Order: sequence, then C-alpha cells, then structure tokens
Amino acid sequence: MSVVKSPLSESDRKVVGDALQGALVDLIDLSLVAKQVHWNVVGPRFRSVHLQLDDVVDTARQHSDTVAERASAVGVNPDGRSKTLAKTTAIDLVPDGWIKDVDAVRVLVDALKVVIDRMRQRIEETDRPDPVSQDILITLTADLEKHAWMFQAESA
Amino acid sequence: MSVVKSPLSESDRKVVGDALQGALVDLIDLSLVAKQVHWNVVGPRFRSVHLQLDDVVDTARQHSDTVAERASAVGVNPDGRSKTLAKTTAIDLVPDGWIKDVDAVRVLVDALKVVIDRMRQRIEETDRPDPVSQDILITLTADLEKHAWMFQAESA
Amino acid sequence: MSVVKSPLSESDRKVVGDALQGALVDLIDLSLVAKQVHWNVVGPRFRSVHLQLDDVVDTARQHSDTVAERASAVGVNPDGRSKTLAKTTAIDLVPDGWIKDVDAVRVLVDALKVVIDRMRQRIEETDRPDPVSQDILITLTADLEKHAWMFQAESA
Amino acid sequence: MSVVKSPLSESDRKVVGDALQGALVDLIDLSLVAKQVHWNVVGPRFRSVHLQLDDVVDTARQHSDTVAERASAVGVNPDGRSKTLAKTTAIDLVPDGWIKDVDAVRVLVDALKVVIDRMRQRIEETDRPDPVSQDILITLTADLEKHAWMFQAESA
Amino acid sequence: MSVVKSPLSESDRKVVGDALQGALVDLIDLSLVAKQVHWNVVGPRFRSVHLQLDDVVDTARQHSDTVAERASAVGVNPDGRSKTLAKTTAIDLVPDGWIKDVDAVRVLVDALKVVIDRMRQRIEETDRPDPVSQDILITLTADLEKHAWMFQAESA
Amino acid sequence: MSVVKSPLSESDRKVVGDALQGALVDLIDLSLVAKQVHWNVVGPRFRSVHLQLDDVVDTARQHSDTVAERASAVGVNPDGRSKTLAKTTAIDLVPDGWIKDVDAVRVLVDALKVVIDRMRQRIEETDRPDPVSQDILITLTADLEKHAWMFQAESA
Amino acid sequence: MSVVKSPLSESDRKVVGDALQGALVDLIDLSLVAKQVHWNVVGPRFRSVHLQLDDVVDTARQHSDTVAERASAVGVNPDGRSKTLAKTTAIDLVPDGWIKDVDAVRVLVDALKVVIDRMRQRIEETDRPDPVSQDILITLTADLEKHAWMFQAESA
Amino acid sequence: MSVVKSPLSESDRKVVGDALQGALVDLIDLSLVAKQVHWNVVGPRFRSVHLQLDDVVDTARQHSDTVAERASAVGVNPDGRSKTLAKTTAIDLVPDGWIKDVDAVRVLVDALKVVIDRMRQRIEETDRPDPVSQDILITLTADLEKHAWMFQAESA
Amino acid sequence: MSVVKSPLSESDRKVVGDALQGALVDLIDLSLVAKQVHWNVVGPRFRSVHLQLDDVVDTARQHSDTVAERASAVGVNPDGRSKTLAKTTAIDLVPDGWIKDVDAVRVLVDALKVVIDRMRQRIEETDRPDPVSQDILITLTADLEKHAWMFQAESA
Amino acid sequence: MSVVKSPLSESDRKVVGDALQGALVDLIDLSLVAKQVHWNVVGPRFRSVHLQLDDVVDTARQHSDTVAERASAVGVNPDGRSKTLAKTTAIDLVPDGWIKDVDAVRVLVDALKVVIDRMRQRIEETDRPDPVSQDILITLTADLEKHAWMFQAESA
Amino acid sequence: MSVVKSPLSESDRKVVGDALQGALVDLIDLSLVAKQVHWNVVGPRFRSVHLQLDDVVDTARQHSDTVAERASAVGVNPDGRSKTLAKTTAIDLVPDGWIKDVDAVRVLVDALKVVIDRMRQRIEETDRPDPVSQDILITLTADLEKHAWMFQAESA
Amino acid sequence: MSVVKSPLSESDRKVVGDALQGALVDLIDLSLVAKQVHWNVVGPRFRSVHLQLDDVVDTARQHSDTVAERASAVGVNPDGRSKTLAKTTAIDLVPDGWIKDVDAVRVLVDALKVVIDRMRQRIEETDRPDPVSQDILITLTADLEKHAWMFQAESA
Repeated sequence: MSVVKSPLSESDRKVVGDALQGALVDLIDLSLVAKQVHWNVVGPRFRSVHLQLDDVVDTARQHSDTVAERASAVGVNPDGRSKTLAKTTAIDLVPDGWIKDVDAVRVLVDALKVVIDRMRQRIEETDRPDPVSQDILITLTADLEKHAWMFQAESA
Repeated sequence: MSVVKSPLSESDRKVVGDALQGALVDLIDLSLVAKQVHWNVVGPRFRSVHLQLDDVVDTARQHSDTVAERASAVGVNPDGRSKTLAKTTAIDLVPDGWIKDVDAVRVLVDALKVVIDRMRQRIEETDRPDPVSQDILITLTADLEKHAWMFQAESA
Repeated sequence: MSVVKSPLSESDRKVVGDALQGALVDLIDLSLVAKQVHWNVVGPRFRSVHLQLDDVVDTARQHSDTVAERASAVGVNPDGRSKTLAKTTAIDLVPDGWIKDVDAVRVLVDALKVVIDRMRQRIEETDRPDPVSQDILITLTADLEKHAWMFQAESA
Repeated sequence: MSVVKSPLSESDRKVVGDALQGALVDLIDLSLVAKQVHWNVVGPRFRSVHLQLDDVVDTARQHSDTVAERASAVGVNPDGRSKTLAKTTAIDLVPDGWIKDVDAVRVLVDALKVVIDRMRQRIEETDRPDPVSQDILITLTADLEKHAWMFQAESA
Repeated sequence: MSVVKSPLSESDRKVVGDALQGALVDLIDLSLVAKQVHWNVVGPRFRSVHLQLDDVVDTARQHSDTVAERASAVGVNPDGRSKTLAKTTAIDLVPDGWIKDVDAVRVLVDALKVVIDRMRQRIEETDRPDPVSQDILITLTADLEKHAWMFQAESA
Repeated sequence: MSVVKSPLSESDRKVVGDALQGALVDLIDLSLVAKQVHWNVVGPRFRSVHLQLDDVVDTARQHSDTVAERASAVGVNPDGRSKTLAKTTAIDLVPDGWIKDVDAVRVLVDALKVVIDRMRQRIEETDRPDPVSQDILITLTADLEKHAWMFQAESA
Repeated sequence: MSVVKSPLSESDRKVVGDALQGALVDLIDLSLVAKQVHWNVVGPRFRSVHLQLDDVVDTARQHSDTVAERASAVGVNPDGRSKTLAKTTAIDLVPDGWIKDVDAVRVLVDALKVVIDRMRQRIEETDRPDPVSQDILITLTADLEKHAWMFQAESA
Repeated sequence: MSVVKSPLSESDRKVVGDALQGALVDLIDLSLVAKQVHWNVVGPRFRSVHLQLDDVVDTARQHSDTVAERASAVGVNPDGRSKTLAKTTAIDLVPDGWIKDVDAVRVLVDALKVVIDRMRQRIEETDRPDPVSQDILITLTADLEKHAWMFQAESA
Repeated sequence: MSVVKSPLSESDRKVVGDALQGALVDLIDLSLVAKQVHWNVVGPRFRSVHLQLDDVVDTARQHSDTVAERASAVGVNPDGRSKTLAKTTAIDLVPDGWIKDVDAVRVLVDALKVVIDRMRQRIEETDRPDPVSQDILITLTADLEKHAWMFQAESA
Repeated sequence: MSVVKSPLSESDRKVVGDALQGALVDLIDLSLVAKQVHWNVVGPRFRSVHLQLDDVVDTARQHSDTVAERASAVGVNPDGRSKTLAKTTAIDLVPDGWIKDVDAVRVLVDALKVVIDRMRQRIEETDRPDPVSQDILITLTADLEKHAWMFQAESA
Repeated sequence: MSVVKSPLSESDRKVVGDALQGALVDLIDLSLVAKQVHWNVVGPRFRSVHLQLDDVVDTARQHSDTVAERASAVGVNPDGRSKTLAKTTAIDLVPDGWIKDVDAVRVLVDALKVVIDRMRQRIEETDRPDPVSQDILITLTADLEKHAWMFQAESA
Repeated sequence: MSVVKSPLSESDRKVVGDALQGALVDLIDLSLVAKQVHWNVVGPRFRSVHLQLDDVVDTARQHSDTVAERASAVGVNPDGRSKTLAKTTAIDLVPDGWIKDVDAVRVLVDALKVVIDRMRQRIEETDRPDPVSQDILITLTADLEKHAWMFQAESA
C-alpha cells in the first residue's frame, strides 16, 4: 500500500528512512532506560538524579514523536514496537534491581554517548538527501549533548 | 542490597509485586502499541484515530509511572526495560507498515481486552494483601475500560 | 445491537447496571434541583446559598458524566432523558416560585439525604460484582456527604 | 411574595417571562438530549460526534443559566425542574439504547431545528417589550444556528 | 480641534453623545458608591456584601471604559472628571461612616434602580440614531439588572 | 447541492447573504492590508504603529471567521479566495515598498472609513430580514470604529 | 457606632487617619484624571500615552483600595465619594475636550508632582504613630515616583 | 448540640471517628515536623532535602483537611488544636537546632513509618463500617508510602 | 554547630531571634486555630466564615514560613514543633466541638488581637537591631490587622 | 528610500528576497485556501476536516509572518496584498460552493504539494547566500510536509 | 541635560544616588558571577547547585532593575556598563575553568557576604534622606540574606 | 581537570569554542548595553524605546545562556565574567548620563551591526566542524537581525 508520496527521490528516501528509524529506536529505548533508572536509583543523590532522569524522558519522548512523524512524512513506516527495540537498540542493558546513584549517572553517561555518536553520523548522512530531516536530527542532538554534559559534570 | 522496608509481609509483597510488575509491562507495551498505530494509521478516519491513540498513550504512560513507583514503595524493583517488555508482554505484535483505520481500531480493541482481563485478575489477587495497591489497579482499570468502550463503539 | 462486550458476567452486569442507572438519575436530578434553587432563592443569605448551589451543580454534573460513561463501559445503556428523570427520580418536587434561604437550605439537606441513602446501598450492592464501579460510587458519595455536612451545618 | 421589582410593565413582563421560560425549557432539555446521545452513540464517527455533542451541551448549559437569571432579573420565576421539562419540552423523545452515528446526527439536526424555530419567534415577540432580553435570545440563537449548520453539513 | 470624523450625522451625534456621557457619569459614580460601601459596611453579612460590591465595581469600571471610548469613537469628548461626577450624578449621596449590611444592600438597590431607569431611556433614544451605541447600552443594562436582582433578592 | 436549510426565507437569505459576503471580503482584505503595512512601515513611530496594526489584524481575522461561518449557517457559501478579494475589495491598493509612519496611519484611516461605511449600510439592510446576522455586524462595527478613532487620534 | 477597635492610641489614630484619607482622595482622583486623559488624548504619540495612562490607573486603583482598607483597619472611615473628591482633591482640573499628547504628558507630570509631595509629607507624619501605615505609603510612593520619572523622561 | 446527622450507625460512627481523629493528628504533626526540618536542615544535601520536605508538607496539609472535613461529614468533631497534637501525636520529638542532612532523612523515615503503620491499621478498622472513609485513608497512605520510599532510597 | 554567620551582632541577634521565634509560634498556632474553627463552625453564616478562615490560614502559613526562614538567615534556629506551640502560644484554647458562627467570629477577633498586640511590640523591639526583620513583621502585621478589621466588622 | 542595510551582498539579497517573497505568497494563499475549505466543507467527516484545516491556517499564518519579517530584515519589501496573491499564487483556484469532504482533502493534498515543491527549491537556492533565511524555510517545510502526510493518510 | 526633577534635596540626592549606584553594580556583578558558576560547576552536587544559582540570578536581575529605575526616579543616572562593573565591583574574581561544587558554594558564600555587608551600610545611610529608597534596599537585602543562609547551610 | 569529553575532535573543539566564547561575550554585553539605555533614555519616544530595549535584553539573555551551556557541552569553559566582558567586547562604550531617544536608537543600530557581523562570520567558521553549534548561532542571528531591522526602521 503506497500511501504517502515522498518529497524525496527513492534513494534519498532510503538513506533518510534508515537514519530516522535508527534515531527512533535510540530515543524510545533511551526513554525506557531513563525511566528504569528513575524508578530504581538509590543513594544520597536519589532525588536529584530521579528528577534529572525525567527531564531525559521528556526530551526522548518528545523527539521520538517528531522523528517518527517525520518518517511518515517522507513515506517511511516508523517502527517503535517493543520487539524491534529489544532487537535493534544500541544501548547496553541496564542491570535490574536497585542502582546506586553513582552507577545511575554512569549508566546515563554511557547511554547518551552511544546515542549521540550515532546521531552525529546520521546528521552527516542526511545532509545532502534531506536538510529538513537533518535539521530535526541537529536539534535533538543539541538537547542530548546538553544532557550528556550534565551527567558528566555530575560524575566529575 | 535491601533498600526499602516493605509495609507488607514477605508473602504479600510477593503477590503484590507480581501484580504490579505484570501491570507495568502491560501498560508500557500498550503505550508503545498505541504510538505505533498513531504513526502508521491511514484511512478516512486517520485524524480521529490518530488523536484518540494519544489519549491512550497519556493514560498508559501516567499509570505505568504510578504502578512502577508503587512497586518501589512496597520494596519490589520494577522492570520496564525493552528486553523485558518484548519477552513478557501479552499484547499481540502489531503488524508493521501502514494500518487501515478499521484495523487500527480493532488492534486497540484486542490489546485493551487482553490488558483489562489481566488487570481484573490482579484486582482480585491484591484485594487482601494490599488494598492500597489494589486501589491503584482499580483506578487504572476504570480508565482502560473507558478507552475499550470507545474503540468498541467506534467499530460498531 | 450488541456493541460493547461487558467485562462483567451477565448477572453482575445487571446488578451494576441498575446501580449506575439509579445513580445517574439521582445525580442529574440533583443538578436540576440545585439549579432551580440557585435561581429562585431569596433572603439575606441569598449570595452565599446561590454560590454554594453551583458547587453542588458542578459536583453532580461531573459525577453524572462519569457514571453514565461507566454504564456504557460495562455494556449498559445510560438513560438521562427528561421523561426518565421525571418518572424515576427519588428527590421531592421543589416548590415553584421564590424560595426563602432557610427553606432552600432545607430542600438541599433533604435532597442530599435521599440521594446519599441510595448511593450507600449501591456501594454495598456493587462491592462483589464490580469493584471498579463501586470505587466510582464511593468517590461521589464522599463528595455528596461533604455537601450534606455543609448544608446541615448551615441550618444548625 | 413580591421580591424583584420588574424594570418592565406588567404586560411586557408577562410576554418576556413566557419567552424566557420557554427558552429555558428548550435549552435544558437540549443539554439532556445532547448528553444522552453523547453517551449512547456508536459507529465509525463515534469520537467526532461524541465530542461535538459536548460542545452543544456547553452552549446549552451556559445559555440556560443566562436565560434563567434574566427571568429572575425581570421578576419572573424560572422553572427548570425535571417534571416541567418532561411536560413542556418541544424536542422529540430520543430513542433509548445505542444510537448509530448517522441517526445521532439526525436527532440533533431535528432537535436544533425545533428549538431554533421557537427562538426566532421569541426574538420577534420580545423586540418591543424588552430589547435587553431580546439581545440575549439573539446571541444564543446565533450559537444554536452555528451548531445546526455543522450537524447539517455532517449529514450532507 | 476637530479630531474624529463621526460616523453619525451631526444631530444623531448629539443625541448619542448625551446618552453616552450620561451613562459614563452614572457608571463611574456607581463604581465609587460601591467602593465606598465595600469599605464601610459592617454587620453579620459583611463578607458577603463586601465581595458582592467588588463585582459591581468590576462591572461598572469595565462598562464605563467601553462607554467612554465609544463616545470618542463617535466624535464626542467623554467627561469623567470628579467635579463633573459630583455635579451631574443622579445617585443619592451615600451617608458617611460605617453602614449596616442591611442598609448597604438598600443603598445598592436604590442606586442601581436610578441608573437602570436612565439606561433604559437611553436605549430607546439611541435605537434609531446609532444601533452600535445602543447595543453597548443594552449589554451593560443586562449586567446592571442582574446585580439589581441579586441585591433585591438579598433584601427579601 | 442543497446542504443547509436556511432559517430565513429565500428573499431574506439573499439580502443577508450579500451583506455577509461583502463583510467577509472587507474584513479579510483589511487583515491583508494591515499586515502589509505592519511589515513595511518605517519612521520614528515604527514600533507603535507596527503593534497597533496587529491589533487590527486580530480584530479582522476573528470577525471574518464569525461572518463566514454565519453565512454557512444561513445557507450561503462564503467566498474568501484571493481572486475574489482582489476583484471585489473596496479598499484602495496600498503602495508597495516602505511606508512612512505618517502615511501608514493615513492608509488605515482611509481603509477603515471605507469598510465602516459599508458595514453601517449592511446593518440597516439586515435589520428586518435577520436580527441575528445584524447583531454580528453591529458588534464588529463597534470594534472597527474603535480602531478608526485611534488612528484618527494619532493623525491629529 | 464604634466598630473597629483601633490598634493605635486615639491621637495616633487621628494623625494616621488624616494621612490615609488624604492619600485616598489623591489616589482616586489620580485614577479619574488618568482615565480622562486616556480617553481624550490625541496626537502622534496617542497610542503610547493612552497605554501608559492605564498603567497609572492600575497603580492608583490598587493602592487606593489598600489605603482605604488600611483606614478601616485602624478604625477610621474612608471617604471616597465623588462629592468628597471634588471638594478635597489637590490635583488641578484637567481641561475638557481633546488633549494634545504633549499636554497630556504635562498634565500627568503636574498631577503626579502634587500627589507625591503630599505623600512624602504623610510618610514623615506617620513614621512614629504607625510604621504599618507608613510602609503602605512608602510602597505606593515608590510606584508614583516611577511613573513621575517616566512622564518627565518623555517630556525631556 | 447535634448538628450533622451521621450517615453511619452510632457504633460505626465511633470506630470511624476514632480512625479519622487519629489520622488528623498524625497528618498535622507530620506537617509540623517536616516544616521544622525544612527550616533547620544543614549539610551538602540541604537544598534537595529542603525542597523534598515541602512536598511532604503539601501532602500532609492537603490530606489533613480532607480527613478533618470527612470527620465533620460523619458527625464527628475533628480536633486539630496544638495542645491536642502535643498530647496525642505518635511521632517522636524532633531535636531542636540545626539538623545534619543525613539525620534529617532518618527523622523522616522514622516519622513516616510510625504514621504509615497506624494508617494501615485504620484502613482495616474502617473497611466494614465505612468504605467511603476507608477510601480516603487508602489514598493518603499511598502518598505517604511514596514519600517513605523516597527517603529510604535516599538513605540507602 | 555554628552554621550560619549572622549579619547581626550577638546582642542584636538575641533580640531579633526572640521576636522571630515568638512571631513563628503565634502564626503557626493561629493557622491551627483557624483550621479548627474552619472545620467545626456551624450556623447560618457557616459558608462565609468557613471560607474566611481559610484566608486566615493562608496568611498565617505564608508568613510563618517567611519568619522561620528569616530566623535561620540571622543564625537563629526556628522552633515550630507541636510541643513548643502548646507550651508557648498566647492564643486561648478554642473549645472543642461545634462552634456557633457568632462564637467563631469572636474567637478570631480575640486570637487576632492577642497576636497583633505582640507583633506591634516586636516591631518596636526590632527597629534598631534589624530593619530587615522589622520590615517582615510590619508586612505581616498589616495583613493580620486587615483580617482583624473584617472579623470585627462582622461582629458589629 | 533605503531603510534597512542588508546583512547580505546585493546579489545574495536578490536571490534570498525572491525566495522569501515567493514563500510569503504561497503561505498567505494557503491560509486563504484552507479557510475557504474550512467554511464550505460538507460530508460525514465535516468536523474532523474542519478542525484540521484550522491547524493548517495556524501554521500558514505564523510562518507567513516570520517570512515577511525576515524579508524586511534582509532589506527586501514583502508584498502580501490581495492583488499580488491573486496574480502570483501557484495554488489552483478552489471551486466555490460546498465541497465534499473527500474533495476537500484532495484540494489540500494538491495545494500542499505545489507549495512544498517550491519550498524545497527555495531551500536549495538560499543555502549558500543566506543560511539564516534557509533555516526558516527548512523549519516551515517540516511543518508543511507533516500536514501533507496527514491529508494523504486521510485519503488512503 | 536636567531631565528628572528629584523629589529629594540636592545633598540627599547625592547620598541616595551613591547608595543606589553601588547597589546596582553589586547586583549586576552578582548575577554575572552566579551565571559563571552556573555554567562551570562540576561534581556530584552539580544539578542542585546549578539550579540554585539560577535562583540567585533571578533575584539579582530583578532587584538590579528596580534599583536602577529607582536611581532614575530620584534624578540620578544609573551606570551598569561592563567597564563600570569591572572597575567598581567588590566581588572577588571567580577563577576560570571548571569549579568543583564545594568551591562553587564557597564562592557564593563569599560573594553574598561582601554584597550584604555593603547593602546593610546603604540601608543605614539612606534611612533619613530617603525612606522610599531605603525600603527597596531592605527588601533586596532580605532576599540576599536568605540566599546566604542557604549556601552556608549547604557548606555546613 | 578534564570533565566533559567533547563530541568534537580537538581542532574542531578549538574553532567551535572560540566562536561560542565570542558569541557569549557579545550577547552578555549587548544585554548590559540594552539595559543601560533602557534606564537612561529620554525624549518623546521614551516609552516605546524603553519597552523595545527589554525585548532585546530578553533575546540576549536567553541566547547567552544557550551559547554558554553549548560551550560546556562541547567541553569548553564559557567565560562571562565582568572583567572578561570589559576587555573583549566589540561593542562601543555607551556614553553615560541621559540619552536622547534618537541617539538611543542609533546606539542599538550600531551595537547590533557589530554583533551581527561577527555572528555571521562564526556561522561560516562552525559550518563544517559542528553543525549543531552552527544551528544555535543561526537561530540567534535571525533574532538579532530582526531587532536590527526594527531599530533601523525606527531611525528611517
């Protein structure tokens, strides 16, 4: 079923579609990881980290929606199902059970690093085929890198 | 690491913990399913179904947070990681690609039915061991059954 | 036309449906009675009673909507038509014309008493067949009993 | 008990009082009819019609309050009791049970037509005796005719 | 200095200008009278009357601004200076000192009656020369008559 | 295609329809003219005039929507397409390029005068056939005449 | 009728009462003067001065209410009736008719100067007898002097 | 003076009244304890604990009002006077002077534990005599246990 | 443990600390007294007094927080524990059980008088040692005296 | 009259000016087209399409203002007059009269396609001469393509 | 150019002007210092300190504006230029580069101490010449001392 | 101390860091310059320029924060201390004392020009090394150029 006529050529659509689908998986899984730690973190910095993680969740949820709808807009079906997340996420599995605040911060530093590295690659790949999608990726990377700075500052 | 002293006896904590963990997985996966259809639905009723699904997402996200924090409060570690969702969700896999609006409504009717049946069982199981957790399950079931009525009314 | 598959067994659905339909009629008629007095009350306490009655109207309207939608959600058709109200309400007919503030307060004390008595019975009846509907009835009874206290305090 | 000294002559007060009392009954019953359909409508357009009906309820409730308080202001006792509604409403009885969306729209087209016809007559009758009451009737008729257009457009 | 070219003929402008200037004085002085009583009222109904009077002040201030700007819009200079108010107001002088709540209500009943009588005359006079100004006078009279009903109901 | 059954007789519908269509064109073009000057005005009073023009745009847009929907409500198709505007507007063409603030004020004084003159005629024409539409025209004329006063005051 | 037992000695009450009553008259008349100019100002700076004057009105109205209620709180009856204003205000009579913007600014510079001079004297007089009333006078003088600076800056 | 006719039987009223009065004292004293620590806490986690304690205060104040008004509604006089608190509270006396953040967290863990234990007992006791009061106790216990989890997580 | 270096000399800190601690106890106990009456008042003026008392509670709570944090800021530990309140409050014990509205008003008149007298003394005592703390006491006394006027006006 | 010194070279200013002027005409006409259909659409999906079109109007109005002010900022006079729109728009003329909902959706799909194609060309053309203007065009194209997806999804 | 006629005598104006200019420099530089640390702080308490510093920035910016406008109001030109700040600030230079959270707190404790000492001196100096300016200095000192307490509590 | 691992290569980090640090100094000093003129401007256009300058302050403050936090995010320490501003700003020193409105506008035109020229250079320099930082610079330049247009339009 061909529903949305893409504003992009077929080959550009393929490149951009891959970038957006990859970004979608990363952002949804980041929101799940952040929530997981939000609920299980313990230690003297509990409240601070607990609240900070909800800021990450907000960022990740908001951008994942933008990215998925952008995929639809260029004629590519976004896939954010739990099975797809489990299979294709690049973020390391968070250990279960309580997480000490020091470890919680490190989990986020690592998760954000993985996601940001991939986002920067996607920014490069989409530059020529679709500056509109690229602009969305640039905007969300700025937000992710701001979060990454904060968690790094916290573990200094 | 024993962090939170449960207000429940050990055996009650086990029963309530299972109910809450089950509810958590159902609610997060419901939010992912609803988003998936939100992005991929097509057909004359696109806008109506698209918006209605975001109401489901709001309900599911809000209650999943309450349920997970309730688990922590009774000394049980909530687990909402994507791998856990993929393995333990009871909701059928949504087909990928565009989804006709008629089918979208049916997907939701089915997903809500599965989740509601399990929630009603959890309400029964938690009645004696923890009326506080039960009250949370009752409240969210009321919301889910309201959504279920609406999607059924829509497919009449 | 069978539209909504009830989450309740047929016999439970019957009991719960009767309770909800009764509650619906009581709440809508309470809102009409409160408005009638709101417009026709006179006396030195006019402004105070006039405003207080709109709080009752808000309570009654909000809960009547919840109750009616709950009926639909358990597969029972709510009936809030004026002919049905006139025939089945248990609240005494308010006299027409201006109502002295002292009498206005008494009218509300009486109307609330009638409605609360029936609601408490419905709470008992729905306990086993449907704790979800029961919870809705408990919540609205708390609000009605708060209003009843206030009008009684006022006529002390 | 003569409470409010009317700003109108006795004969004008009679004419205006009848117009306002008639408008009051029509508006309250319109709100009850719209709620009844709001709860019982089914079919693919469920959500759209369900929401649209709450806009009608808002309009009807807001104007019924204005009209009733206007009656009091000209020294006429408004009567909005359920028994009065059942006896004097001009709107046809809505059938009970589920209502198909197509029929729901038709019910509203008919109900609005009946009410609007009577309102236009009231606008004429109050023109000379009380331009202040007439202005209120003009304003609410504009709102009702806007709703009427929308439901007609929907059944085209 | 001829600044604003009136949309009205010279004779209509005169009639409408007189009506608006009269309304302006009445409304400003009503706001001063209501504030005077708002500050000096005493008795068991103090709080209720105190608050009710600020509603009158809001009504009077808001409409006085509309009326004055309407005068400018038809090329007539509004005059709301204290000396003009003192000389041309038709409202009786409020006694100084504390005012018993019963008397406070009566002062308002009287003041509103005087102003409303004159407003109704102005509605008649402006009907033909300027329906736009008349509509403003009709709207504010509705508000004044609503306040008049409330204070009368209170003194019943 | 006969969609909306007009509440007016055929001849009244014709008169009222012409008035509303004329008002619609005037209001949309007024909004375009005000925006054009909003963007191109220069001179020491730039900021003041720039902001004042957006108030005109708000007024014109809001009333144009009311007028167009009123046309639909009386069974007349509103026509607000750019080609129709260009052909039927009565407002003089604004010169292109930068506009000195003094000239900007004069452009608005002139445009508002043209529109107001035509609106006053429409108020007269619709008086008998449709007081509901007339009331809408009266309300918007009050707003336009207020703007006209302000721009005239500014060029005094 | 002795209603409010003053927290001040009788002689202090006299001094403070005079200061508050004087401040009340000044503030109300300032609000009337500012409104008078707000409606009648003309000239290229019309919009700017028109808006600035409403800021003065807000300041004057808000503080006049505080001052009057402070008088009541120390057992002194505030008097804000139009006749009292006309007789005891120290602000010069504003000329009637249109006022050029340059003159409007000067009228306010003068009115604010007169009022501020008297307020500064009242601050001195109330220092010992009642620091609570003095604090209210200090706060409002700060606001008045801010307005005075702005109008002077404007006429530089 | 018998003011409010209880909806409960006399013996049920006694049981429920004791539960509500006990809950009232616990909640008010909890709010005082939390404020005491809010003002006196010191240490590197000052800001975090300081803010967290105000969340506890909000919870305790809001529920204490609900509980006290519920008591009145079942015909029992709530007693929240400082003497009563001092005599009947079950929370340990907080030491005076500065409190290290580590100790502050422990004080709250202990205070919440005491209160929660008693609340759970009250939930059991009110189950049969009054499900409406019980529901209020269940809701507030959920909030208290959430706070208890957070402070425990913080001291892990 | 010496935490906060006071901006005051040691002897000034003592005087100011005593004043603030005294004010704190008065304000917290005033809030408890007002709540106690808020819940137990009965009689025809119930609603008015009930609402008015919550205004007192808001005032007392807000200022007690400011006063306590001011104590910390000058290096003095605020003490707002229930035992301290019970021992050091100067407000008379409110009788338990229902309170007639007339008596409720008198209780507040008395409680406010006691507190205000002590506050005025504290204003004097802090004048030289700390004008910053004095300013806080002046501001809250203005609010308390406003409440005192209202309750006295009500009992006139 | 040379008013704004462009931050661009003369040749760049020409290219960017043409792009912005073209975008301005497209966006204003899109807002007029969307409003035209908003008022005249009929059919079962009336309400949904009616609301969706106002989202398009909001998008188009907001971006047209940004684009026009950007033109001024680079020293180019924006031209949004109705005659210019009629002459230079690239969107097909919408047929007059009622429009079936199916056709309404198609009209929008077509209009959006035309505008998007031209916007993508403008993004390319402005890349080198002015990345600031390009960024504005990229942002608005993202919004337009989102609307385009939705209308296409709706006609699938 | 003599623009604003000071309400103060020439010698008082000099004293007050010096106090306000000094306060202005202190407050602006405090806002710059707080922002500098806000951006460069690192360590486990990063988030808490980062947020707390923005509260200081808000306080400092808001009061600096009040102080500067107060200077203008007494006829003294405020000077808040960067060169003036660099030359006349009394706050020690913050070291560049990352700042450990412990050091960040100490920087603020020191900076606030310096500023508060000077503010207290200014309060004394302005007492006689201008109680209005003094009141502004008192108010802002209360806020600064509250911040000082918090940072000291944090470093305990 | 190496805290934040830059997502950029070392050489790119250097280029981007210089651009961001330069932008930071320009934006902070622009905010100080705009405030300085905001306080000292005089002349007939005082109010308009005074308000316009606060819009510039808002823009400059908001973007300076974004730019500084972006620097931290790429591992570069932002430096916004007053000494650094005084030494490295490129904006000309504003003369002290009152500033005529005509001169005030010119000061802003000049300051904005200097800053914009440098920003455009930074946009070029960061294009390749970091599109994320470049996007931030593009966005703020759009805002600055909009302000620049307005001040130029004002001096035309």
